[in-house]
Amino acid sequence: MTLTKIEPQNLRTPGPTPIPEDIVDEMSLPMINHRGPEFKELIEATTNGLKQVFMTTNDLYILTSSGTGALEAAVVNTLSPGDKVIAATAGSFGDRFVQIAEGYGADVIRMDFEWGDAIDPEAIRAELHKDPEIKAVLVTHNETSTGVTHDLESIARIVKGEFNKLLLVDAVSSLGCIPLPVDGWNCDLVATGSQKGFMIPPGLAFISISARGWEAYEDAKIPRFYFDLMAAERSLSRGQTPWTPNVALLYGLRLGLDHILGEGLENVYERHAEVAAYCRAGVKALGLELLANDESRASNTVTGIKMPADIDGGRFMSMMREDEGVVLAGGQGKLTGHCFRIGHLGWVTKDDITEVMEALERVLPKVGFKG
Amino acid sequence: MTLTKIEPQNLRTPGPTPIPEDIVDEMSLPMINHRGPEFKELIEATTNGLKQVFMTTNDLYILTSSGTGALEAAVVNTLSPGDKVIAATAGSFGDRFVQIAEGYGADVIRMDFEWGDAIDPEAIRAELHKDPEIKAVLVTHNETSTGVTHDLESIARIVKGEFNKLLLVDAVSSLGCIPLPVDGWNCDLVATGSQKGFMIPPGLAFISISARGWEAYEDAKIPRFYFDLMAAERSLSRGQTPWTPNVALLYGLRLGLDHILGEGLENVYERHAEVAAYCRAGVKALGLELLANDESRASNTVTGIKMPADIDGGRFMSMMREDEGVVLAGGQGKLTGHCFRIGHLGWVTKDDITEVMEALERVLPKVGFKG
Repeated sequence: MTLTKIEPQNLRTPGPTPIPEDIVDEMSLPMINHRGPEFKELIEATTNGLKQVFMTTNDLYILTSSGTGALEAAVVNTLSPGDKVIAATAGSFGDRFVQIAEGYGADVIRMDFEWGDAIDPEAIRAELHKDPEIKAVLVTHNETSTGVTHDLESIARIVKGEFNKLLLVDAVSSLGCIPLPVDGWNCDLVATGSQKGFMIPPGLAFISISARGWEAYEDAKIPRFYFDLMAAERSLSRGQTPWTPNVALLYGLRLGLDHILGEGLENVYERHAEVAAYCRAGVKALGLELLANDESRASNTVTGIKMPADIDGGRFMSMMREDEGVVLAGGQGKLTGHCFRIGHLGWVTKDDITEVMEALERVLPKVGFKG
Repeated sequence: MTLTKIEPQNLRTPGPTPIPEDIVDEMSLPMINHRGPEFKELIEATTNGLKQVFMTTNDLYILTSSGTGALEAAVVNTLSPGDKVIAATAGSFGDRFVQIAEGYGADVIRMDFEWGDAIDPEAIRAELHKDPEIKAVLVTHNETSTGVTHDLESIARIVKGEFNKLLLVDAVSSLGCIPLPVDGWNCDLVATGSQKGFMIPPGLAFISISARGWEAYEDAKIPRFYFDLMAAERSLSRGQTPWTPNVALLYGLRLGLDHILGEGLENVYERHAEVAAYCRAGVKALGLELLANDESRASNTVTGIKMPADIDGGRFMSMMREDEGVVLAGGQGKLTGHCFRIGHLGWVTKDDITEVMEALERVLPKVGFKG
């Protein structure tokens, strides 16, 4: 079967992200026995490296799945049908966490915030005050669909410090790019994916679980098998995974972690912050409007931009891709057709964003944008 | 982090399997937007190619998970807690299918056969006769832990032809290597993994579902999210997957399918049969004993061999790996320490097995095997 040749492009989706050449090469290493000594070294080294990036001494597991699989793991390993939980959402990924919890029978108190807004920590405090039976709070750190980073630090202080509830965090598009000190903020379950900050393809997910999370596991009655973290723990203690893992991505992950820790976490965060500020400034200079209602909460991994009302969004996205080689992400959920997004996470520099801005400058007038 | 260099080796585990050089290269293509037009071509082409290898016109989905994820998908998409099902097992992977069904609350009638034996289709017929309330039969096509291929054709004739029950098949280590005409045998759900016959790394799973399977879906009450096949269906109709997929492995899969379909399914089966017969003959010539009690049911993808009682199995496996560069698989479950296995599936020729035999000839005497 012959498909259209895949050309190099400026891939600006908020995952998958471009992969550095040396990581591509590393993933070409020969396959190995996933029950053998080389694999034991590999899984132990990557798990330990991930703990450094998560800034945690909690247990941490590598799952062969998309990031969504790790979100499911957070829910099914800690909750029982009927458990009362708060899930705060201000976008597609907040909604997904709600759907997972509801799908597995939790009694979800859904707290909706405007898409483009940040979740209000005070509202969560008020809800927790109202109902002492709430067992857990589910929250997205960085809402990829709008480009807003929620104030997880304040939320965690309330959920953990004031109420001592279980805190489940979707960190898929934040971890390794935006500060998230898992132990510092006392987050119980934190889930992320490989195709974001880690500079490798999609296909692995990572999840950390605190001692308090393990306590919840003991009582949790939602059935689970593939995503059972105790199965992962038993296998990891022998240097293995319970099911055949994605060995090639683990090769890449090892090197990706080397790059992140070599650059230094603080420097990685700073680079993301600089590139993102540069992107927002460029977007505004073009006369475009951010989706984030409060720019101080705009995301350092993805910039969400309102689709100008006077242009054909589909034609604009196609021209950016076909004429300029710049691949933007469209809107999700109720934002479909109403926004576009520029990803700037993982292996990214200001130069990548300069290219995007130059392309926007050429394409926008052609599709009738008045600015 | 510096790990031991991974050297080329004769990897004879029954998955992961060696990857041909051109597939390794193909997996190095640049990342793309998984919601874009290149991805649509890719997922449609690979899904269609897989249907040819499955010999089915049923719906088929590519999941980002290990093969075990697809087994879980088969169960959670078709059953409800309390459903009475038969699960026949004669090894570790048969046991795993039992555990999944039990874990999700099915009322499992477990039929145990001796490890090394094939499942007796007549016993399944007798059980189905006894209890008309049985909804489904779960069966492993090729038991990787013992190297026995069960008589799925006869089992399917009974389960489908005589009793018209739902048939769930674990085809993880058979599909694409051993004939399994999914439509010809009328199998409802058939699950397999990428790291076996398809010559790519682990990390993707494939599952087909019949119209009858979709009917069962309508009534199935086990909760599901990540492995929900209706979510996969809705996304595939737009050329997408519900969750971010493993793009790199899909590149490799496209080429792997080209190789399989280019060689011709019948030729692929014949090659596996020849290599396996050659392996069994070699093993017996060395004075070793097969795990399969009936050689006519010995697997064409993996040969299970009893660990000779007079040797130190651990030392033997290490010497094969370290001195000879031949990586064998050990025993699983209750066979741990009591057997070793030679994988011969996917990208394999007689030459690979000749190397194994020559290495066995050198190593066995050194560990005190009298033959």
